[in-house]
Amino acid sequence: MIFIRGAAVLTMESPGVLYENGEILIEGQYITHVGPAGSASPPNDIDRIIDARGMLALPGLVNCHTHGAMTLLRSYADDLPLQRWLEEKIWPVEERLDPEDIYWGTMLCCLEMIRSGTTSFADMYFHMDQAARAVEKAGLRASLSRGMIGLSTGAGDALEESRHFIGEWHGAADGRITTMLGPHAPYTCPPDFLRKVMDMAAEVQVGIHIHLAETGKEVEDIRRQYGKRPVALMDELGLFAFPVLAAHCVHLDEEEINILAEKKVGVAHNPESNMKLASGIAPVTRLLEAGVLVGLGTDGPASNNNLDMMEEMRSAALLQKVATMDPVALPAFTALSMATVNGARVLGLHDVGLLKPGYKADIILINLHRPHLYPRHDLVAHLVYAAQSADVETVIVDGRVVMEKRQVLTVDEEEVYRQVSRRAERLAGRK
Amino acid sequence: MIFIRGAAVLTMESPGVLYENGEILIEGQYITHVGPAGSASPPNDIDRIIDARGMLALPGLVNCHTHGAMTLLRSYADDLPLQRWLEEKIWPVEERLDPEDIYWGTMLCCLEMIRSGTTSFADMYFHMDQAARAVEKAGLRASLSRGMIGLSTGAGDALEESRHFIGEWHGAADGRITTMLGPHAPYTCPPDFLRKVMDMAAEVQVGIHIHLAETGKEVEDIRRQYGKRPVALMDELGLFAFPVLAAHCVHLDEEEINILAEKKVGVAHNPESNMKLASGIAPVTRLLEAGVLVGLGTDGPASNNNLDMMEEMRSAALLQKVATMDPVALPAFTALSMATVNGARVLGLHDVGLLKPGYKADIILINLHRPHLYPRHDLVAHLVYAAQSADVETVIVDGRVVMEKRQVLTVDEEEVYRQVSRRAERLAGRK
Repeated sequence: MIFIRGAAVLTMESPGVLYENGEILIEGQYITHVGPAGSASPPNDIDRIIDARGMLALPGLVNCHTHGAMTLLRSYADDLPLQRWLEEKIWPVEERLDPEDIYWGTMLCCLEMIRSGTTSFADMYFHMDQAARAVEKAGLRASLSRGMIGLSTGAGDALEESRHFIGEWHGAADGRITTMLGPHAPYTCPPDFLRKVMDMAAEVQVGIHIHLAETGKEVEDIRRQYGKRPVALMDELGLFAFPVLAAHCVHLDEEEINILAEKKVGVAHNPESNMKLASGIAPVTRLLEAGVLVGLGTDGPASNNNLDMMEEMRSAALLQKVATMDPVALPAFTALSMATVNGARVLGLHDVGLLKPGYKADIILINLHRPHLYPRHDLVAHLVYAAQSADVETVIVDGRVVMEKRQVLTVDEEEVYRQVSRRAERLAGRK
Repeated sequence: MIFIRGAAVLTMESPGVLYENGEILIEGQYITHVGPAGSASPPNDIDRIIDARGMLALPGLVNCHTHGAMTLLRSYADDLPLQRWLEEKIWPVEERLDPEDIYWGTMLCCLEMIRSGTTSFADMYFHMDQAARAVEKAGLRASLSRGMIGLSTGAGDALEESRHFIGEWHGAADGRITTMLGPHAPYTCPPDFLRKVMDMAAEVQVGIHIHLAETGKEVEDIRRQYGKRPVALMDELGLFAFPVLAAHCVHLDEEEINILAEKKVGVAHNPESNMKLASGIAPVTRLLEAGVLVGLGTDGPASNNNLDMMEEMRSAALLQKVATMDPVALPAFTALSMATVNGARVLGLHDVGLLKPGYKADIILINLHRPHLYPRHDLVAHLVYAAQSADVETVIVDGRVVMEKRQVLTVDEEEVYRQVSRRAERLAGRK
């Protein structure tokens, strides 16, 4: 049992609720009490008390879309046209990735996430058993998908590998690890393959994580080939009968926005990746108006180049304001909801993302004793418009402290740095 | 004499130059040697050696446009339409600012800047003698302007106050403080007043810092009143015969871009403020193509809400890529040049912003031992796309160490926090 006291507490239940001096009780994996100081008499068998004066407590951040092991390719190739970036740089190196690379790359991802306040994430890559091992060790919560290219000769094997991976890992690590099927995108997974994916989703009862409507080129190619736009095509195929995490959704028409709302598709908005790759600006304001569930993601660290959700919240809010030419668009509390509770729902986690009894104890403490967080007119605006990930002081996932006073307790940082440095040299062909 | 050794050194002289293991010699205010390890035999009378292994040395960042004391209004009002934000929130509080508020607000600004690697900035506000005192104490370099509203009844007094301020402070603090005249904007300073400003600029021999073409409304209003767009109007009045720092320059036509290039106007691009206030996206790519000198600024912390130049670099690069739908636009080295040497030139500082003998010793050391900075494929891409301001470990301004291992040596942080917290409560009418 952990008792956090003295913190300002932002429950994220509704915009107004902030306990200036609050307390949180954690029993096992769960939050059992949240309220102002003195609102509960804590039981006698508390294991530890966290004195969080000068801190702000809020739900851990949720990164709805990444390719974690691509940390190994961070800053390997930038400022290039998309096709050259992929064909000349990213793909050739990905060919050389071995299972242990994925383990250490994902471990670096987890380390960076812990240090920046992310407690849950959705990952799509390959050798996912290695990614799962890293997530289990690091103590994070994750929804993992084996990415599948339906057009490749290995598509059938990938599907079988997915079945095996899901069987082995879904619900593992005390339930911290869940799984999805990961057909890469409409332009790499033709309808026949997607039908097989849906058959398997029905059989193994998991959701589907897919890239969707990321670029204008995708929309054009799909329309040319199938006479429909990507979201409409997926709808026609019946994909949205399953729980779907759709990453990007940059290029949408009104009909598609309505489909995403009606079919309760979870959208992962990745503003910085969409900006950096010049994919476009997702119509997030319209999506929210239409009632679509939208979370935030960083995308892979090769196109970002970090996994910093504090930054991603800010970019999402600022980008919508300028894109709609409306300074009221995507206000701070909305951005913060996208990065916490709404993101959790995009991952299919319905007891994650709020500080509320019955919810999983995924909690971060922000150190407010920073020049950029003074004075304290509005802590929600501070979080979205002024804070940085290095302000995260303590991180709790599933009731377990994984970082305390910026010391990560679950990962050997030095070993991670040695491993990824050595492996990156090999991958880049420098050694 | 300070000798820095063991750091990776990014001189910013040209894209390729990075000494993996470099050394820098500082004598007094100046850099006297930069090169690979062992390239100079350091003299015997070195006062101190900084062991910078695991660090990246680069020129200190230059923030080309802010209103520093507005730290007191950080997160005081957000997510509002521009006119309501100004008229109902910002202006009424600014009415209540007293000279000591400006001192402490600017001190908080300086503290935040030091901790985020900014060594020079351009500030426009009022009670500037107080701002200058804070800059002198904090040890930063700054170009300070008394903001003047030509339409106000106090315009004449403001001009005289400017003359006095310039006489007192231009070249003060061993030359760290320089001054400009600060007519606020074309829509608040009519041509008659601007002529007086130009007369004074000619008399006292300083440049002019002005907001220019920030919003579409400004362009429309000026065109309606004068039959010309703002930049064209300023050109016609002869403003650009003086060294001009033009903040924003969001709404420009081709003719105006050419004027800015020909007349060597220095532009301060403020991407995050322009996004947050929904002012628009400055045509930075076109400005650079036309040969305009462009630096970066944060604008005031009430519309940002921090003074973080690492973040501003990243936003500038990402925003241009998506605005032009070209992932090659505003590459990392260009963004970094805007935030260092080009920014210094916008401030009229021609011996600041490079690590080069004869340049002022304004140097920051970045701690690379961070998960988001591994592995090390490309340190320039890391700086712009992955680093954060908390990675700044040590800051040297004018040959003096002002922060070492994240301890600020020139400012009493706790006193600043106490002062600004108390003053912010009073200003917000909460006490």
